[in-house]
Amino acid sequence: MMGRFKHDEYIFYGELSSDGNLVTSLSHDGGTFEMSELALLPPAKPSKIVCIGLNYIDHAIELGMDVPTEPVIFMKPPSSVIGSGDKIVYPAMSQRVDYEAELAVVIGKRCRNIDHEDAGDVIAGYTCFNDVTARDLQQKDGQWTRAKSFDTFAPLGPFIVPEEDFDPSDVSIKCRVNGEVRQDSSTSNLIFDMPHLIEFISDIMTLEVGDVISTGTPPGVGELLRGDVVEVEIEGIGTLANEVI
Amino acid sequence: MMGRFKHDEYIFYGELSSDGNLVTSLSHDGGTFEMSELALLPPAKPSKIVCIGLNYIDHAIELGMDVPTEPVIFMKPPSSVIGSGDKIVYPAMSQRVDYEAELAVVIGKRCRNIDHEDAGDVIAGYTCFNDVTARDLQQKDGQWTRAKSFDTFAPLGPFIVPEEDFDPSDVSIKCRVNGEVRQDSSTSNLIFDMPHLIEFISDIMTLEVGDVISTGTPPGVGELLRGDVVEVEIEGIGTLANEVI
Repeated sequence: MMGRFKHDEYIFYGELSSDGNLVTSLSHDGGTFEMSELALLPPAKPSKIVCIGLNYIDHAIELGMDVPTEPVIFMKPPSSVIGSGDKIVYPAMSQRVDYEAELAVVIGKRCRNIDHEDAGDVIAGYTCFNDVTARDLQQKDGQWTRAKSFDTFAPLGPFIVPEEDFDPSDVSIKCRVNGEVRQDSSTSNLIFDMPHLIEFISDIMTLEVGDVISTGTPPGVGELLRGDVVEVEIEGIGTLANEVI
Repeated sequence: MMGRFKHDEYIFYGELSSDGNLVTSLSHDGGTFEMSELALLPPAKPSKIVCIGLNYIDHAIELGMDVPTEPVIFMKPPSSVIGSGDKIVYPAMSQRVDYEAELAVVIGKRCRNIDHEDAGDVIAGYTCFNDVTARDLQQKDGQWTRAKSFDTFAPLGPFIVPEEDFDPSDVSIKCRVNGEVRQDSSTSNLIFDMPHLIEFISDIMTLEVGDVISTGTPPGVGELLRGDVVEVEIEGIGTLANEVI
């Protein structure tokens, strides 16, 4: 497990000990810190966040929609990223904000035109993502950008599991609100898997180190209220937790 | 006029002499160069590019559409930016690529929740933008992101005119393809002017130094073919020229 941390003014990428109590800096001038003396930052600094519309077969069935033949992509801005433990700020402009639990990858190598068979080579690792969405503005605008781009609407983390330590083909993905399970599916229900998404997206745009691709959300999306604590838990990664204020 | 330039491996922001033949570096260790010995780079390095849908009254009339009551926003990724003189690469995935001439601003100050009356304080300056769009994919996807996000689909430049030297309220904006005028309007036809766009967008997301906001395109959008040279000319700024390959 890797993460991004802050100790006083020193910001660094670090590796967690197996018990999660110690963090060793990955930079040359590094050192080892107690987790308790560190602030946790979002585990990546993306130049872009590319997300996928309807991409769970069980979600498509739930909505009574045809299964898409190609992914539909949209983006969230870097300014929307927060880490685990940070607050989601409910915007004054919206009366309906939803959670969407998702599995995301962080890109580890600048790339373009990657074949799905080689996608593993450009993935740094996997993490949890919450595609927070102002549902009323999404419906009003038709285009999804405003609804998904508010500051704090892209919780990411808590940590990155390296590509070689994680098999994303059939892991449990859950969303809980105040401890109650709201989404409960498996990545085996993904219509387009991560290698095919990387092929598709890298045929459009150059991917940079730190860029985030998120895979879409399973059935059960629903509303967040001020004061709620929303958790995205993915088997083998961990739990991304954020309070709504 | 300011721009971004490269001399061997040295990349810098510089100010042009009034005749455009000399460039003085804006950094401390600067110096003055002949324009002829420099490579021209895009004049900003945005963390995000926020664009506006239908925003010219004459374009709305042309399309027979209602005038929008709020801007509709979308984004292009930083990886799509090129400068004047760079090539627009026609993607294999599309059979219909269009030009869209636009007036853009570059943000000069990190900001959030800016009132339209204070918008001038956060603008570094103005430049030309071409919102190149794969029209067939825009129609197919419904969401506009894929259609507008290909590498090279965000020509920006050639230079930035500082905010204090430019009145954007009524300037001519033209698009030419192979010398033939295809778009010819005035920024006086904008439905939402730049101060109101900055207020609207900065209520959604934090704007960073170098971010680009583009204002939408006037009537007359149309097709580009391989080999075409497309030019966006804005009165008082200059001409952004790119060949399609």
